[in-house]
Amino acid sequence: MTLGIIGLGLMGGSLGMDLRQLPFVNEVIGHDHNASHCDTALELGLVDRVVDFDTVLQCDTIFLSVPVDGIMSILQQMPGRINADATVIDLGSTKARIVESIPESIRHNVIAAHPMTGTENFGPQAAVSGLYRDKVVVLCDMADSGKPQQETAVRLFSGLHMRLHYMRAHDHDRHAAFISHMPHAISYSLANTVLNQEDKYNILALAAGGFRSMSRLAKSSPNMWEDIFRQNKEHLLEAISLFENELDAMKKAIKEEAWQEVHDRLETGKKLHEILL
Amino acid sequence: MTLGIIGLGLMGGSLGMDLRQLPFVNEVIGHDHNASHCDTALELGLVDRVVDFDTVLQCDTIFLSVPVDGIMSILQQMPGRINADATVIDLGSTKARIVESIPESIRHNVIAAHPMTGTENFGPQAAVSGLYRDKVVVLCDMADSGKPQQETAVRLFSGLHMRLHYMRAHDHDRHAAFISHMPHAISYSLANTVLNQEDKYNILALAAGGFRSMSRLAKSSPNMWEDIFRQNKEHLLEAISLFENELDAMKKAIKEEAWQEVHDRLETGKKLHEILL
Repeated sequence: MTLGIIGLGLMGGSLGMDLRQLPFVNEVIGHDHNASHCDTALELGLVDRVVDFDTVLQCDTIFLSVPVDGIMSILQQMPGRINADATVIDLGSTKARIVESIPESIRHNVIAAHPMTGTENFGPQAAVSGLYRDKVVVLCDMADSGKPQQETAVRLFSGLHMRLHYMRAHDHDRHAAFISHMPHAISYSLANTVLNQEDKYNILALAAGGFRSMSRLAKSSPNMWEDIFRQNKEHLLEAISLFENELDAMKKAIKEEAWQEVHDRLETGKKLHEILL
Repeated sequence: MTLGIIGLGLMGGSLGMDLRQLPFVNEVIGHDHNASHCDTALELGLVDRVVDFDTVLQCDTIFLSVPVDGIMSILQQMPGRINADATVIDLGSTKARIVESIPESIRHNVIAAHPMTGTENFGPQAAVSGLYRDKVVVLCDMADSGKPQQETAVRLFSGLHMRLHYMRAHDHDRHAAFISHMPHAISYSLANTVLNQEDKYNILALAAGGFRSMSRLAKSSPNMWEDIFRQNKEHLLEAISLFENELDAMKKAIKEEAWQEVHDRLETGKKLHEILL
């Protein structure tokens, strides 16, 4: 099978690196509208070769690893240009709007997937082998995809040693808001809070592991996250509001010196790590 | 010099482990009101021996590595019981209230220090060698400590390869609220937000590195953090309020689809990592 990857950043580049090792993959072909990404991907051996947009659409299987808005735009251009039995796997971080946007004539070709992995780095130079190994991939609304396409997707993600979860696109988006999108909004806001302090240099001189851990996500790509926030707006707003309620209740308890309540809130929060596998 | 460590948890235990290696340290003596901590500390070789409270007060230098309320209580018991030229180094996470509480007769004996290190684990079994190496230690209101005590503290922290910062206790507490205490309040509140969701198991099944990084601090000891929140109440409330304003502004921009503003907020947050050394 020939594989095409559209978008040779962290996700697409790391994918190419490991898919090239699979015995049933003949060739991994890349495409990216950014010429320097193409050069870097070739230099680092993330793909076998780089081709134009029309050529990458001829692959047996095509991964879409560009920001969500880009995925929706590419899907609109696919009818009549991909092979009738092609498998198109979108790796977007939000799923409901992507799934709704798939043109009816290629609905059976498309697999809506979200691999729950990544790092705060981006671009092809950030690609690492093993990024997908042992991680969860969420497959959304799979019954709407064709049988051969389902089989191809399962074969490829299993080849990457991923753990497959099946979910409705709407549920995925709500879960992702809590587990990923809202925490990113927090991390950026925490960074801004400290940066707005007059003595930020003194404050940051004291930064230990805890602060680094909480602010790490604010290293991520603003373009990508603006896009995700836009796509998952309603769920994200709900998650932020619920978090604000929690933090505000903690603040109120501290203000009123209700130390038993503060303690209880810390104890219940700590229980997270009994079920976080 | 003989060193005493009161409190054989993560901080005291890790300290004993590395201080025992220093050539000018003859013996490291431990004390903890928790008998099982004493047993574990001896088994793991964190201290040379364990003694009662009166005996540990006879050491040349005494580290106080218990929660802040405990430090204040111990300081009240020291006048007349420690050697006239003893050095007492408190390692509490908040400083202003500790410094204010030092009895006048032993003010010159006491060094108010805060090593900016730790892990989310606690107890002597969590002790690790190298916990202090290359980390910042904040030394507060040093001019109020005696000259010999200042020299001893510098010698010991330098022996641990720490980076020394000098600061007023009040400034330390405000900085620590932003860099450490408020981020802990966020992490626990994030954990509670997810745990309050009906489908928390489904959500947590998707947890990747980002969420783990943001919720890691919520593994910390509730006893210790209740104590710190109480000691640094005013600065913590200020820091939480400023963070809430930031997050709320982000939420408002998302709600109003002011995407350029969202993007700008992400871009400015990202700049943190240009100055976070």
